Amino acid sequence: MREVITDPLDPRLDDVRDLNKSDKKGEGLVIAEGHLVVSRLADSRFPLRCVVGFGAKLDAYVEEYGDPGCPMYEVSRETLAAVAGFDMHRGLVAAADRAPEPSLDEILETASTVVVLEGVGDHENIGAIFRNAAGMDVDAVLLGSGAADPLYRRSVRVSMGHVLRLPFAHLDGGYTTWQRSLQALRDADFRLVSLTPHPEAVHLADALKGASKAALLVGAEGPGLTEHAMKATDVRARIPMAPGTDSLNVATSAAIAFYERQRSRIDFEV
Amino acid sequence: MREVITDPLDPRLDDVRDLNKSDKKGEGLVIAEGHLVVSRLADSRFPLRCVVGFGAKLDAYVEEYGDPGCPMYEVSRETLAAVAGFDMHRGLVAAADRAPEPSLDEILETASTVVVLEGVGDHENIGAIFRNAAGMDVDAVLLGSGAADPLYRRSVRVSMGHVLRLPFAHLDGGYTTWQRSLQALRDADFRLVSLTPHPEAVHLADALKGASKAALLVGAEGPGLTEHAMKATDVRARIPMAPGTDSLNVATSAAIAFYERQRSRIDFEV
Repeated sequence: MREVITDPLDPRLDDVRDLNKSDKKGEGLVIAEGHLVVSRLADSRFPLRCVVGFGAKLDAYVEEYGDPGCPMYEVSRETLAAVAGFDMHRGLVAAADRAPEPSLDEILETASTVVVLEGVGDHENIGAIFRNAAGMDVDAVLLGSGAADPLYRRSVRVSMGHVLRLPFAHLDGGYTTWQRSLQALRDADFRLVSLTPHPEAVHLADALKGASKAALLVGAEGPGLTEHAMKATDVRARIPMAPGTDSLNVATSAAIAFYERQRSRIDFEV
Repeated sequence: MREVITDPLDPRLDDVRDLNKSDKKGEGLVIAEGHLVVSRLADSRFPLRCVVGFGAKLDAYVEEYGDPGCPMYEVSRETLAAVAGFDMHRGLVAAADRAPEPSLDEILETASTVVVLEGVGDHENIGAIFRNAAGMDVDAVLLGSGAADPLYRRSVRVSMGHVLRLPFAHLDGGYTTWQRSLQALRDADFRLVSLTPHPEAVHLADALKGASKAALLVGAEGPGLTEHAMKATDVRARIPMAPGTDSLNVATSAAIAFYERQRSRIDFEV
């Protein structure tokens, strides 16, 4: 179903209204922008509500990805800017409902590599971690306390839509603290590896060697993982840093850990 | 020397005026913001012109790092905001003159790991690459065509001041193309390694194994390295990516290459 809408106040456009408005409660709709991310939303577990865009962008989308199976609203650039609250030059946006997370048990049934985030409150970092995790064969993201909402618009965008594809779950159900829920990973034969810049930690490559399943814990830039979280893990691992330099950005540290994890599972022939 | 200035139009503050104004020619002063980065500017090859800040911030700076050896101007938050063009809540900024780059020959005298950038036109990516390079023992950054200015204010900030410490040089002097200047690296016994997502490239770890000196070439996100640049190298290396995902951000790819380079030079005891 496709209709042309010219009035920015038309309530059918409410799903994509005032997109710069902050969504502090993490209860808003899931918003995808641009062809690739909209297609990933359409393929995801989140039920599409509508796709809104310029006429040519809707044509191109349907030609490449087929009918999205939800209402499509064709708008001009001016109308979309008036609705969204800024000039959306990519000209295509979609909204979907939130959907329940998989349970930790469901994730652990098939996962062999997971990343666990503590206190990563920055939406760009969360998005980048999902993008890197998806790219390097991490099976799921587990969110401890203080993690930003992966479904926030900025997280979705920076992740290039991978927050919509890669399973994630919050670690808090049924345990007194989220760190205690890490025991479920140990019970499922995961090696729990904390990333820390501490010079006495072992090299990341040593920490991951021979692990059939691995959970990589990373903390926020600055404070890093809490001692409480690190105590709940099997080994503390470091990425060696040159003296007098700063610890890496959390998404960069995580990417290196994902790379090493993937590398540790390959035999080299050289 | 320290003076209080209350008039935002005072010409002594011209060095830090209108900092959001773009510096497209790459000829502006070098600007550092915040304690840590100002201290790195003070320790660098760039001659400090002035340090401007709130009274308490200047006190704290001098107590931690000593007298910067240039005029210090004490201003109120309102005055600094009026001069800089935005509210500079960190309350400390310094300006320095640009200084000549080292020559490629000077760099190659002592370097054993360098990164070569082609077409990395984004200031945040340039800054992040310097930060990661400094953190993981890369000795210098070499800039091919299309690289953004490392001394742009945003690059300085994202690099956490490492653009001021890590040597860099533009590759263009005396050769018909910048790619031909890579021959100087080969003559100095560097292995030239291109990073590419191409599935037929060899694994990064194989590409770097046993290299006493290595030059890591990375290209802009999206297009990546040109074929012209890759042809000038010895080996094409890839970071393995999961099917259906996107290539990594250029600063993330580079960070993984720096990690692997550092890792390939360590013997593990496990």
